[in-house]
Formats: sequence, structure tokens, C-alpha cells
Amino acid sequence: MSDDSSPARIAATLRQWIAAAPPGAKLPSTRSLVAQHGASPVTVQKALRSLAAQGVVESRPGVGTFVRAARPNDFGWQTAALGSPNHRIPELPTALQSAPNDAVALHSGYPERALLPERLVRAAFTRVARTDALVDRPPTAGLPELQSWFAAELESATPAGTTPVAPSDVVVIPGSQGGLSTAFRALVGAGRPLLMESPTYWGAILAAAQVGVEVIPVPSGFNGPDPDAVSRAFEQSGARAFYAQPSFASPTGALWSPELAGRVLDTVRQHGAFLIEDDAAHDFGMTADPRPVAAQDDGGHVVYIRSLSKSVSPAVRVAGLIARGPARKRILADAQAESIYVSGVLQAVALDVVTQPAWRTHLRRLRHELKTRRDLLVESLREHAPGVALEAVPQGGLNLWARLPDAVDLGRVIQECKSAGVIIGAGSEWFPAEPTGQYIRLNYAGPNPGAFPDGARTIGQVLARAA
Amino acid sequence: MSDDSSPARIAATLRQWIAAAPPGAKLPSTRSLVAQHGASPVTVQKALRSLAAQGVVESRPGVGTFVRAARPNDFGWQTAALGSPNHRIPELPTALQSAPNDAVALHSGYPERALLPERLVRAAFTRVARTDALVDRPPTAGLPELQSWFAAELESATPAGTTPVAPSDVVVIPGSQGGLSTAFRALVGAGRPLLMESPTYWGAILAAAQVGVEVIPVPSGFNGPDPDAVSRAFEQSGARAFYAQPSFASPTGALWSPELAGRVLDTVRQHGAFLIEDDAAHDFGMTADPRPVAAQDDGGHVVYIRSLSKSVSPAVRVAGLIARGPARKRILADAQAESIYVSGVLQAVALDVVTQPAWRTHLRRLRHELKTRRDLLVESLREHAPGVALEAVPQGGLNLWARLPDAVDLGRVIQECKSAGVIIGAGSEWFPAEPTGQYIRLNYAGPNPGAFPDGARTIGQVLARAA
Repeated sequence: MSDDSSPARIAATLRQWIAAAPPGAKLPSTRSLVAQHGASPVTVQKALRSLAAQGVVESRPGVGTFVRAARPNDFGWQTAALGSPNHRIPELPTALQSAPNDAVALHSGYPERALLPERLVRAAFTRVARTDALVDRPPTAGLPELQSWFAAELESATPAGTTPVAPSDVVVIPGSQGGLSTAFRALVGAGRPLLMESPTYWGAILAAAQVGVEVIPVPSGFNGPDPDAVSRAFEQSGARAFYAQPSFASPTGALWSPELAGRVLDTVRQHGAFLIEDDAAHDFGMTADPRPVAAQDDGGHVVYIRSLSKSVSPAVRVAGLIARGPARKRILADAQAESIYVSGVLQAVALDVVTQPAWRTHLRRLRHELKTRRDLLVESLREHAPGVALEAVPQGGLNLWARLPDAVDLGRVIQECKSAGVIIGAGSEWFPAEPTGQYIRLNYAGPNPGAFPDGARTIGQVLARAA
Repeated sequence: MSDDSSPARIAATLRQWIAAAPPGAKLPSTRSLVAQHGASPVTVQKALRSLAAQGVVESRPGVGTFVRAARPNDFGWQTAALGSPNHRIPELPTALQSAPNDAVALHSGYPERALLPERLVRAAFTRVARTDALVDRPPTAGLPELQSWFAAELESATPAGTTPVAPSDVVVIPGSQGGLSTAFRALVGAGRPLLMESPTYWGAILAAAQVGVEVIPVPSGFNGPDPDAVSRAFEQSGARAFYAQPSFASPTGALWSPELAGRVLDTVRQHGAFLIEDDAAHDFGMTADPRPVAAQDDGGHVVYIRSLSKSVSPAVRVAGLIARGPARKRILADAQAESIYVSGVLQAVALDVVTQPAWRTHLRRLRHELKTRRDLLVESLREHAPGVALEAVPQGGLNLWARLPDAVDLGRVIQECKSAGVIIGAGSEWFPAEPTGQYIRLNYAGPNPGAFPDGARTIGQVLARAA
């Protein structure tokens, strides 16, 4: 066989032919290429496959091989059709980025695999795979047993004399992110004001931008918001809703005192308003338990969202949204229009996991493990990165919220840390408006906690150079 | 043991005590009730449990038993906080109702269990339950392999000379309903005009109401819309998007001819607009194959939604949305803000099912089974319910769309059929505005097709009485 009949040679000859042909032109048949090059059909096929892999031709089985259109598509017309966006949705934050395996990843928003109840989830999927959950369409408000579980969880924190929520107050939703969008659409609406803690969870900032509500930031920190500031913001804006994370807030880790919870609830009542309570870190208490404000309210003022995706499994996109009265009706109508219902398999798996006795055991182990990691990261920072100022050590949640000296260039610090293999989140992603300081968020639930001292050392070195 | 110490007697005595006590009051301790009634602790517990089951008291383990607040909660304040809705979301349609087991259910929007690839789905869940899909968070745009599958499906219908879509053009979304909401929000927006076929899929009407777009109905029927009417509607409304189901539309079953598809595509191009193509019935061809208009377009004019929930399993809430250029960016931003990502398990299961050779076998069997059911229902109606006028027999989809005589009271016919055990959908649910006639939708994919003749007989009898 001559050199001329190698796949590479045939491909090169064909490339010349293609360069002169119009897009969509049909290549000579395999048979004629075999004859032309004195090659075997296998060799010709290899040549065609290499051209297809390069995107030069496309093959349509049974029809032939065609010159692929090389022109870049022009979608410029879409600019006029789409118009200016009413409200820009921000880019996804650092918390969702994936990191190289050898990096010290302090940026994630999610607990790593070792912190998940993997065996429980695996067993639950295997069990549920044998049931009718695979073929049944569950009710739009959720599986009754799962509604009951969410209601019972909140009831267990409800004081005597307060009417507990009923299972029928629960709407099961496909993850808490959709719950935030739904609550903001159903209770607030585009162009209307919504109070939000600042800083606050980036997912809520994203949902607020998507819905197009007018965000009214209320300063908050490790002790939660000042209830007088909440009251003033209600008065000045005319808002009828306040989004907050009273238990282990992202990013500060704040846990509202019972007194603060009572005062915020009073304020909300006085203004005929809603508290949209995001209890995302419910399962991540370390040295304290979560304190759902919703448990204190039977007047329909608190709309409560409890997620299971973060603590059960990222594959189990299930959350419970609890609301009463007309608010629940609006929320259910929006949730139905958005997703009709939540996968019965995911609901059954979530229910299976959280009703196993081993779930409680897992939560106790998780509590201990998170505390160990938190302590290691705090000590590492104190020892190796004294420029990182921790306002306080959180009692729950997955993050440390720390301030850097005002003089440093935050973007540059983050970039230099990244170059040195340490990934951290810029605090600006947690502010609905301008950041009030040079903050960073450090997650201690990512993989490889043994590298925390090294990571802290790197941060310390970068800061020392930046000072 | 005297009568006085039975659980019922103790409960009756406690009811009197409770009636005089304020809500939240603590009941006497079990010990004192034991002493008072000369009963065993077990008997007292039984009495308390019966009161708790009646909702009269609530027990807090370790604390005691309390009088439950009897007052009805007053959520009237929410009326002011919520205000009038910007746009009312309609109630869920008949298609989502559940029916008694012995009813002839011609109303459902979903294929029954016997039409699903149950064994494939079960095997896929069992396989995936062993993988890392349980603990991994997939990319926000979807699993790359599933993106590739959706792209390849559309590419297989793409003519030579048209640039096929790329896997990166695909956004995996949690069900097509969310895709409709996302497309309407991202491409149209609240208050802006959107052309829709009329009649059309109720889920799209729901999504349009949720987003608050201004719906511009375009008359359509078994032959699809008149392209001149589409063009006029674009001109008169200034709309930049047209929602349609070109392959086996719900409810009419319409399959656009290649010529019609070409003319609509030309019209859309001329108006610098989008066709939002909902290919929901892609897998439900009987005597024809679906003809995705998106395959004809490489200019970014067609935004294409392909669902897998209906044909794979109601538990596998997975769909693919395909768009190019800036439109895809806006769609992805909205989808991320709504759900961040789609469960990796559901994506892996969907991919597993549709890439099995047995999936093709299932689709062939489904094709045959649907056709048999369709023919049986058509014949039954012709024989027993001559008042039901079928404009045409659909070549795909799950439904017959039929017209009743103008003189009958549609609501009453539907009610009387229901009383006689035959559940049918009122055509009004498929009209974005006023219905143009007395239509009904009859689904032949529900359970128990053997009852079609009986069902048709009942409809015929009800119509005969109504005439």
C-alpha cells in the first residue's frame, strides 16, 4: 500500500477538495474514494472519521458525507428581539465553581461527599427503585407523608399555645432555589420592594434579580439585623416582605437570639408583612440548634423554606415551603405553573432518608465533624493569617466570614491565592448592593480539610505581600 | 375497674375541663389523672391520645399535654400585603385530576403505567443508585453526555447544509414546564406580547399566565396555524416570539406539513422573531414521525424544548432546551436562577434509558399500542356517540379533539358524563381566550382502554339527552 493510501493522505486530499466546495456539498462516495486512492474501505472510513472529528464534514448515516458549513452563525438579530434585559441576572458565584483536585477549595457552597449520608441515600434510591414511585405522578403539593414530615419538624419547635402548622400548609418544591423564586414572585412581584439582609445568601440575590424585585438591603452581621433598622426599612420602602436566614445565615453564620426573633416577628406583624425565612442550614448546627422563627408564628406571617438537597444529597432536589392562608395559595399556584409537581422518586428518597434512625446518627456525626473542621480552619487562620479578621466563630453553617484590611486589593488577593492553589470566595458575591468592606467567605465543608493549615499559610503570605 | 375509668369516660371528663380552659392551658399530669380516675397509666394515655387525634389537645413529649387553640386563624391581613395579583394563574386543569379506579378516565394528560418503559426505568435507577451521580453536583447546563444526546437527536433530523446544533447549545432543565416558564421569561417578559396557537397546551397557558406575558392567540387546528395569520399577528402585536407545538400538538394532534413549517420559519425570520417549539409529543408518533422545525433552522430563530418526563417516567423530570446565541445565554441565566442545576441522578437515569437498545423497541411497541387505542376510541365514538364530531384522526399524540353540537351545555355534558363514571376534559382549558366552540378532549392513553366502548356509549347517551 503506497503512502498515498494512508488515512492521513486521503484526508489531506479531501481537505483540498472541501476547501473548494460549497458548504453542504456531498463528498464522493466511499466506493469512489476507495477506487481513487487504491485504499481499503476501512482506510477511507478512517479518513472520513478524522475529518468529521475535526468538524470539517458531517456524516449522515445512509445518505453520505457532507461539507460542514464553516461560516460562523450570526445571531445579531436576536439583540433586537430580546431588547435590553429588564433586570440583569448576575453570573453564578464562586460557590458553584469546580476546582482542581489538588487545590485547597475554601470556596464551595456545598458539603463534600464525606459529609453526606451516602450509604443512606444509596439504600433509599435502591429501595425506592422497586416501588411505584417510578411510575406514579405525586400530588402537586407533594407526597402527603413528606408534607407531614416537614410539618412535624416545625411543630417540634412550636411552643405550647401556638397553633402548629398542618401538613396541608406544606408545598414540596424541587429545591430551595425554586422556592425563593416562587416566594419572591408570589408574595412580592417584579418592581416591588423586598427587604433582604446584607450580606446574604447569593442564591437569594440571584432569585431576587430573576424575579426583578426591588431589593432593599438591611444591614446584618454576626448578631443578625437590628430590628429598628428592619422597622425603618419597612416604613421607608413600603415593603411587605423581609427575606432572612435566622439560623446560621450565609455567609455570616448568624443565629438570631430568641429576643431578636421575637422583635423581628413583632415588626413584621406591625407592618402587615411577611418574613420569608430560609432555613437552609437547619441541619448544620454545631454548638447550637437552629431556631426557626416560623415555629413562633401562627398568624401566617412567616413563610418558611427548609431544604434537604444540601444535607441529604445534591441529587435529591427537594425542599419544603410552609405558608398559610392566601399566601400559600399564591405560592402553590406559582410552584405548579413552574414545575407542576416534584419527582415522586426524589420525594420518596428524601422521606426514606430522613425517617431512618440512622439519619439522626448521621446528623450527630456531621455536627461533630463540622465543628472539628471549623476549629481547624479558625486555628489555622489565627496562626498563619493574622490579617484575616474573624468577627466571630459561627455556631452552625458551613462558612467563616472574615474581613481583610481595607487597604488590600481584594480581587488581587483572591487571584493570587488562586494561583497559589487556594480558592476562596469574594465577599462581594454575598452583598445585594456595594460591599461594605473587604470580606471573604471561607467554607470548611469542602474536600481535604487536612490542607487547612497550608491554605491559611498561603492566605497569610499573600496578605503579607499585599500589605 | 369501674365505668368511670374507661378511656372514653376519662376523655369525656377531660373534654369538660378543656371547654372551660384557655387555649394553651396545660392538662393535669398523667399521674394526677391516674389518681383522680383510679385508672391505669395506659388507660389515661389512651384517653389523651384519643383527644389528640381529635385535635383537641396536643402533647409535647417530656413537657405535657396542652389545650389546642380552637380559634380559626385569621389571615385576612394577607389580603393587603399581597394586593391584587398582577395576573391570575388559572386553576390546574382536568388533565391533572385523579379519577376513581372504576371510572373511564379519558381526561388525563399523561400516559398510563402500561405505556411507560417501566423495566428500563427501574433498571436505570438501580444502576445509577450505585454511581457517583448520588453525590455529585452536575454542571448547571446539564450532564455533557445528556446534552450530546439531545443535540444528536435533533441533528438526526437536520438536513445537509444546515449547521446542526452543538451539545453546548443544550440546557438540561427539570421538566418542560419549567422550560416554558423560562423561555417566556427570558425571551418575552411580563407585559410583552407572545403569539400562541389557540387552542394549545394548557401547561403553556399556565406558564404564560405565571410570567404575565400578553397572550396573542393565533387560530390553529388540525392543519396547524395559517402562516398569514401568524404574520398578521406578528405585525399587529409587535410580538417577537411564537409558541407552538408543530408535531402532534396538544390538543388537536396537528402535525405541520413541511411546507407549513417552512412558511412559519420564513415568517419568524422576516419578523426577527423566535419560534418557541414545544416538541412534547416527540415520542408519541403513531402513523407519522415528528418533524422538529428546529432542525431546519441554524439562525437561532427556533428555541426547542424536548421533554422526557412523559415518555420515560413521571419521576424523571428532565427535559432539554436548545437555543443558540444570546437567547441561550438569557435562558441559561434564568434556568440557573430558578433551579441552579437538575438532579444528577434524574439526568443519569434519563440518559441510561434513552441510550438502551430496548428504548427503541419500547417506542415501536408504544407506537403500535397508541394506534390500537386511538382506533378503538375513534370507532367506539363513531358507533356509539355520533354527536361527537372528530375533525380528523391524529397521526400522533395522546388525544382526540372533538366538537359537540353548539346547542348543548358543555359543562352539563361533562358533569353528567362524570356522574355516569366517564371523565372527559372540557375543551375550554386549551383555549388561551374564549373557546370558539364546544370542544372536548379525549385521551386514549389512560388506564383501561377496554372500557372505551362503554365510555363512548355513555357520552352518546348523555348527548342524546342533552340534544
